Amino acid sequence: MTYCVGLWLEQGLVMLADTRTNAGIDHISVYSKMYTAAVPGERMLCLMAAGNLAITQAVWNRLQEGVALEGETHTLSTIGSMFRAAQLVGAAVRAVYEADGAMMEKQDVRFSVSLLLGGQIAGGPVKLYLIYSAGNFIEATPETPFLQIGEHKYGKPILDRAVTRATPLEDGVKLVLVSMDSTLRSNLTVGLPLDLLVYETGALRVRQQRRVTEDDPYFRHLREAWSAALRDAYRRMPAPDWL
Amino acid sequence: MTYCVGLWLEQGLVMLADTRTNAGIDHISVYSKMYTAAVPGERMLCLMAAGNLAITQAVWNRLQEGVALEGETHTLSTIGSMFRAAQLVGAAVRAVYEADGAMMEKQDVRFSVSLLLGGQIAGGPVKLYLIYSAGNFIEATPETPFLQIGEHKYGKPILDRAVTRATPLEDGVKLVLVSMDSTLRSNLTVGLPLDLLVYETGALRVRQQRRVTEDDPYFRHLREAWSAALRDAYRRMPAPDWL
Repeated sequence: MTYCVGLWLEQGLVMLADTRTNAGIDHISVYSKMYTAAVPGERMLCLMAAGNLAITQAVWNRLQEGVALEGETHTLSTIGSMFRAAQLVGAAVRAVYEADGAMMEKQDVRFSVSLLLGGQIAGGPVKLYLIYSAGNFIEATPETPFLQIGEHKYGKPILDRAVTRATPLEDGVKLVLVSMDSTLRSNLTVGLPLDLLVYETGALRVRQQRRVTEDDPYFRHLREAWSAALRDAYRRMPAPDWL
Repeated sequence: MTYCVGLWLEQGLVMLADTRTNAGIDHISVYSKMYTAAVPGERMLCLMAAGNLAITQAVWNRLQEGVALEGETHTLSTIGSMFRAAQLVGAAVRAVYEADGAMMEKQDVRFSVSLLLGGQIAGGPVKLYLIYSAGNFIEATPETPFLQIGEHKYGKPILDRAVTRATPLEDGVKLVLVSMDSTLRSNLTVGLPLDLLVYETGALRVRQQRRVTEDDPYFRHLREAWSAALRDAYRRMPAPDWL
């Protein structure tokens, strides 16, 4: 399992991925699920992946080598717009399906992958897309300015209640870490360390990319402070007068 | 879908169930999923059910009519201990499986049911059990003093962080309502109104049983106040110094 979340804010993007992969609960490993394609001053793209690791690694490798889209071969470093970048990722997913899908199905392995692609290319807006196993995709909109892949349920309530387009980047960082903390506590197949990326609208370069480990002082403090704040919060709620 | 949660606190029990059932997303109805068997001064048992409605109603009807357990026929109003009450519910589940399971399997309908049974019988302790489709069961323990059935993920983080055996009943009411609110916001197949029951250890009678509707002033206030408190809480968290 995996949990990745991306926030599409007026100020920019906040992207967070865990790093645990598992083939059965007795076979867990650490793999980064976050990839970046950045040309400072020209483009910054960040891809996060959930699903079958053989598929997600094949998708990324194909994107590195070049994928055919409408008769031309492109990478995320050469593609002309974020919309076309999402199409390119979709085309890479379809190419992996063409190569491996039939044999996986024969062996009853589901062709399962989903990806979050966020970024900006000079001259265009910041975008955040969710690409499905079929290679089609949706994008974040003002009503729903965040997208999640993998084990999304535990970490969704705080995002539902707090994230808007106007959320500042630094609050966005707190919120994705709190959302991840809720998930880490409940699903053993989502695990530390974390990969965090922060992008500021118009910068066309990564603002911050950071590996957050179990010993990270800020994350440790945030986890404890958040639990304490929740306990304070419900104690301050009025009790029902009918009890 | 369904969401039911029970808290097993030193002061007593807090039980909460939604009322939405659905056969496809275009066929939803309101059914109570909470049943009580109370003999004031002698016993108070509360049963909440998730899963196939035909199964859960059949289980409750069999429990009303009497179920055979080790050669004797009992109801929840005559059974001698909470442990035996959980066995009786399990026996009712098995009886329904005997009656309907084969035909359901023939038609590819899963035999799916889970139940929470909480209560106290004079002379014994307060107990909270989770009974599975196979009729076997687990009970709440001091390390994990709450049990959930149905769509449990959205509402679990707040319980994980806040519920202990020492949580007072009134805080327990707030916490299950907040947990339910997170679930209602994210899963359309969990719906209002809610059935809430509060039991105080040793009372041997219901302390409060209440239907919480969308217009319930306390629930409305709690939902808004909780969202506001969460937003305050994350804004008060320190920002990372590395951003």
